[in-house]
Amino acid sequence: MVTMSSLPSPLTYSHSRARCLRFLSSVSLSLPIFHNFKTRPKLFTKSPNPLILTVRNCGSITAKPSSDITRKNRAGSEPDEKLRRLRELFVKPGIDIDAYIVPSQDAHQSEFIAECYMRRTYISGFTGSAGTAVITKDKAALWTDGRYFLQAEKQLNSCWILMRAGNPGVPTTSEWLNDVLAPGGRVGIDPFLFSSDAAEELKQAIATKNHELVYLHDLNLVDEVWGESRPKPPKKPIRIHDLKYAGLDVASKLSSLRSELVDAGSSAIVISVLDEVAWLLNLRGSDVPHSPVMYAYLIVELDGAKLFMDNSKVTPEVMDHLKKAGIELRPYDCILTEIESLAAQGTHLWLDTSSVNAAIANTYKSACDKYMGSLGNKTTGQSNIYDSSNGQSGGPTGVYGLSPISLAKAVKNHAELEGMRNSHLRDAAALAQFWVWVEDEIHKDVKLTEVEVADKLLDFRSKQAGFIDTSFDTISASGANGAIIHYKPETESCAVVDAKKLFLLDSGAQYVDGTTDITRTVHFGEPTARQKECFTRVLQGHIALDQAVFPESTPGFVLDVFARSFLWKIGLDYRHGTGHGVGAALNVHEGPQSISFRYGNMTPLLRGMIVSNEPGYYEDHAFGIRIENLLYVKEVDTPNRFGGVGYLGFEKLTFVPIQSKLIDLSLLSAVEVDWLNDYHSQVWEKVSPLLDGSAHQWLWNNTRPLVK
Amino acid sequence: MVTMSSLPSPLTYSHSRARCLRFLSSVSLSLPIFHNFKTRPKLFTKSPNPLILTVRNCGSITAKPSSDITRKNRAGSEPDEKLRRLRELFVKPGIDIDAYIVPSQDAHQSEFIAECYMRRTYISGFTGSAGTAVITKDKAALWTDGRYFLQAEKQLNSCWILMRAGNPGVPTTSEWLNDVLAPGGRVGIDPFLFSSDAAEELKQAIATKNHELVYLHDLNLVDEVWGESRPKPPKKPIRIHDLKYAGLDVASKLSSLRSELVDAGSSAIVISVLDEVAWLLNLRGSDVPHSPVMYAYLIVELDGAKLFMDNSKVTPEVMDHLKKAGIELRPYDCILTEIESLAAQGTHLWLDTSSVNAAIANTYKSACDKYMGSLGNKTTGQSNIYDSSNGQSGGPTGVYGLSPISLAKAVKNHAELEGMRNSHLRDAAALAQFWVWVEDEIHKDVKLTEVEVADKLLDFRSKQAGFIDTSFDTISASGANGAIIHYKPETESCAVVDAKKLFLLDSGAQYVDGTTDITRTVHFGEPTARQKECFTRVLQGHIALDQAVFPESTPGFVLDVFARSFLWKIGLDYRHGTGHGVGAALNVHEGPQSISFRYGNMTPLLRGMIVSNEPGYYEDHAFGIRIENLLYVKEVDTPNRFGGVGYLGFEKLTFVPIQSKLIDLSLLSAVEVDWLNDYHSQVWEKVSPLLDGSAHQWLWNNTRPLVK
Repeated sequence: MVTMSSLPSPLTYSHSRARCLRFLSSVSLSLPIFHNFKTRPKLFTKSPNPLILTVRNCGSITAKPSSDITRKNRAGSEPDEKLRRLRELFVKPGIDIDAYIVPSQDAHQSEFIAECYMRRTYISGFTGSAGTAVITKDKAALWTDGRYFLQAEKQLNSCWILMRAGNPGVPTTSEWLNDVLAPGGRVGIDPFLFSSDAAEELKQAIATKNHELVYLHDLNLVDEVWGESRPKPPKKPIRIHDLKYAGLDVASKLSSLRSELVDAGSSAIVISVLDEVAWLLNLRGSDVPHSPVMYAYLIVELDGAKLFMDNSKVTPEVMDHLKKAGIELRPYDCILTEIESLAAQGTHLWLDTSSVNAAIANTYKSACDKYMGSLGNKTTGQSNIYDSSNGQSGGPTGVYGLSPISLAKAVKNHAELEGMRNSHLRDAAALAQFWVWVEDEIHKDVKLTEVEVADKLLDFRSKQAGFIDTSFDTISASGANGAIIHYKPETESCAVVDAKKLFLLDSGAQYVDGTTDITRTVHFGEPTARQKECFTRVLQGHIALDQAVFPESTPGFVLDVFARSFLWKIGLDYRHGTGHGVGAALNVHEGPQSISFRYGNMTPLLRGMIVSNEPGYYEDHAFGIRIENLLYVKEVDTPNRFGGVGYLGFEKLTFVPIQSKLIDLSLLSAVEVDWLNDYHSQVWEKVSPLLDGSAHQWLWNNTRPLVK
Repeated sequence: MVTMSSLPSPLTYSHSRARCLRFLSSVSLSLPIFHNFKTRPKLFTKSPNPLILTVRNCGSITAKPSSDITRKNRAGSEPDEKLRRLRELFVKPGIDIDAYIVPSQDAHQSEFIAECYMRRTYISGFTGSAGTAVITKDKAALWTDGRYFLQAEKQLNSCWILMRAGNPGVPTTSEWLNDVLAPGGRVGIDPFLFSSDAAEELKQAIATKNHELVYLHDLNLVDEVWGESRPKPPKKPIRIHDLKYAGLDVASKLSSLRSELVDAGSSAIVISVLDEVAWLLNLRGSDVPHSPVMYAYLIVELDGAKLFMDNSKVTPEVMDHLKKAGIELRPYDCILTEIESLAAQGTHLWLDTSSVNAAIANTYKSACDKYMGSLGNKTTGQSNIYDSSNGQSGGPTGVYGLSPISLAKAVKNHAELEGMRNSHLRDAAALAQFWVWVEDEIHKDVKLTEVEVADKLLDFRSKQAGFIDTSFDTISASGANGAIIHYKPETESCAVVDAKKLFLLDSGAQYVDGTTDITRTVHFGEPTARQKECFTRVLQGHIALDQAVFPESTPGFVLDVFARSFLWKIGLDYRHGTGHGVGAALNVHEGPQSISFRYGNMTPLLRGMIVSNEPGYYEDHAFGIRIENLLYVKEVDTPNRFGGVGYLGFEKLTFVPIQSKLIDLSLLSAVEVDWLNDYHSQVWEKVSPLLDGSAHQWLWNNTRPLVK
């Protein structure tokens, strides 16, 4: 599935500034290293240049809101009432604010979030995945990006101002607050819903008008308004991710992590990103759609670890698993108490402020300040180990750095790769069954909508062993809908799959042993010469990236140009990155690596990393093309090793035919034709044993070699 | 000619640090934008990571020192005496220092410098182009890089410690000073010889041991020791660069510059980079070898301009030219007085601290501080225009930014491109004459040394109309010498050109209308299969870059991978950048653009920029291969313009045959063979009219199409 980041963050974006910063040589840009890909709808970002941030544009992949939320708001029955009750809270003792910001996030910067955390959706009625609501005493405004302008216009009632982020003249949220509030205002946030970095950036942005950012730790104002009708937090049981899929037991993972802590001069780490917790503990959950994670925080100390999670999710088996690894269970809500306690013990806590929320980071800082004096007289053991190396005279200090789990998780071990390979073959079998079905139906002139087709695909996948969930909302897009990069068909409004148009299908699944993500573009009738030319150039880019060989230490962005150069030759391009990381039976989008035309991510591609290879081309109001396989990075046995380094390349995980009908053979070189024939021969060899009947025949028909 | 930057700056380099910083994702690197390429032997650099700096490694292209300097020091007759006299000055009143640093630079960060400024060579006896001498009261150390270890061992007498920069465990100069000086020491420098940024970095590095950096504005201690025997500063007359070559008159250039000053809120700029002064004023000089520039500073105000230059260089014609443009002449040595005076007038001076020396920058800052109080009461006209916009309450403030001349100079106008095209054809004619000569001689078994061959090439070039000078020292390298990327043959030690080995020739010339830089690699006998494979892959990279099409705003580094990918496929690579900017009848290396595997330079390639295309491959102790053409950036008429932007590509300036004998045709695609045949057909068409006799025949023979 494609990742896209041309859409800016409304809070940090200024139209003219972004244009100036694009590549301007006379401005000394500081390019941060983006350590992860999970910046999905993160509206507050550390980056000084929103255009080089890899912001995931996940219009199509948010969890579906409950019909309850949707209906209420579409009917416009009581939005005023909600705002009125919210504003009543503004003046309560201990609150006393002039404005309140409601972002889309949960407390973990998750890509997919549970319904009970969809506060922005509840308060505004706008159900799109990306957006920020800001409510002052007399105004309410909602920022969203170009994908959602139409939807937001429909869903917002007249009390709301729609801020079309990215359009010229549209202010950022902080610019707007600076404009509408009288100087010296108090702007409230729930600090759990902002990363520490984002909160800091916001604080500085509004400080220019002497506004104060007020952290309301103790209650979320929207939840107060939501009251009894607010859905309960998810309580689905969690399960152990079998060692045969995980490859490495929890003790080993914790041991490596603790070595890293010691090396960094820290004595504990707080992990708040959900897939990092799941990976480290070899656990999987079902709290959100598409991602097999559970809501939890984890604190790992040198001699123990505490998992903060609702214990009703913990089966005896899981409890045993945790105990064996020396992990104690604590209530989810006790995280701040423990953070305070760590500071009191003089713990040098490792905090990744780009992901850890402001509530945690601030609690730690305040507690450190608070206990600083008293600590000087005590010997707290652990803390003093680091005092000298940190050059501090007593007292705890945080170690601020990117989470070490991110990279460890990205480099797959043998068992993880094996699970990914196996699940991809079963996924390919389901896709073959699906394609033969859809071709038959279309050729029988059965009218199928985009949603019906997606549902049928889910049927086929769910029959495969180990199937758990889709890994994101299927992008099933006929004709012009394919040009909407994150198109999400809705039952009531989607198109019928047109036999005379291109059909783009981007989908994936979660299996017990792996995660898939694949895009194919097909034509059920006769493609035009234009469509064939565009498809062929996209394919050439796909092949060039697939076949790339590169020295160790090469960052992914260096390879991005391979995927684009064939389109560039005729003046075409696509406005999204080419590759993102994928978790092993985890999140379909993960960092820290990426392959993108945004050049800030210096993470080298390492052996065992998984990336998607998904160039595309989109012709507005006409068609969309994307060809996506997942690849993993492997050592290539080159005849030379210049510089004494290893040379790396890719191995394919995805084995599904690419439609030959769409290829203009005259454009392909002999080497490219060989690549295609070799790929199809592998598809046949690996997937045909899993098929029979018409799907087996379909696979045979669609893997025949082309002759130029 | 190749540009290389794997060799670090001895002052900022630490072996282990550089290795760690290579691409480490967990370190938040701040990547500065390098606005120019003239960071050649700049030993103090702003960059936190020396490996991503485009440092020119100019072992082969420094001006030859006078035989006087060389002989004296090789004989080792009086080095102790020099150091003794230098140290005597340490304790003089008003000096009082514990150490003195002598860099290689002149006051303008020039690539090629005049003999009188070769102070490091004089004091140490070491004649290599790159090096830094540091003298304390009882020690003397010289840092140089791997190219010069052998030479430095020979040339330094026993009083000197050789610091092999880049070797493990070798300290940087500041680390060494921090080690050998008692805390609180005073380290002297001539602030004219350090860029403001470099001095600042040095200051901070030695402050960790409480050492003070002492700016000795008034005298250079080495000059004091050098005394009467020091060569006089160059006084060669300067000349007007004809408008038919410059394309834009001085008034127009000044007018654009002044608009930029106003836009930036500044009222004057000081320009200290010599090619910027020459370009802006349409003047050319002969003060240094290879670059047609003259020693000068230029200050441009909104209503006038002052050129600081020895007036003996100014002919009546030039004086008239200057007067017409409203430029007053001032003595070179009066620059600091004028800077003080500008500050006194409240001028907001634009300073590019990466190139302007510390003497100028500090004089301005001190003078601003000094006049700050008194200015509050005066109305000084000009200065007050900007006071409000800068939000300052009275007093001048500097505008710190990259020089606007750098980009303006890099984007060539029609006349400049025309001059470049024409001079390249004459250069190609000289090369054809040269190649037929050298082939004949070699086949007649005449023993020719690398220097003799280079001299003969100079002969042929000097007969071409408008020839002025070589644009750098010719790299004439037989066999294994070709693997030394910046090899400079010396009469007494160079090799004979071996008919059985590869011969690499990298050379260029200054003509009245343009500057050339070309590399060809040939074999006079039978190349091995290995040599052919390597040559062919270098050629494929050369072709791929030459044929690249890319959208506007693409930084050069994005294209670098095109030049490497064919080598990477078999595990080969080269340790230098792929392309540098070239001046139009100016410096052979200029910025701000580059095409390199160092990804910090975000300068986009713009229409009219010139870049070299010079991939290579070097097999230590065996052979070197490089194929270099100059290209200019032009709009490509693509059938689409996705995103509404223009698509750019390259047009060749260089038209000299590529030796077919070295090509393994089986590796080339049909498209690549077509490229080669088309190129050779253009070479024949454009250059044959300039030739007759054997050179005409040679060109015919060497431009015949290949058939695969």
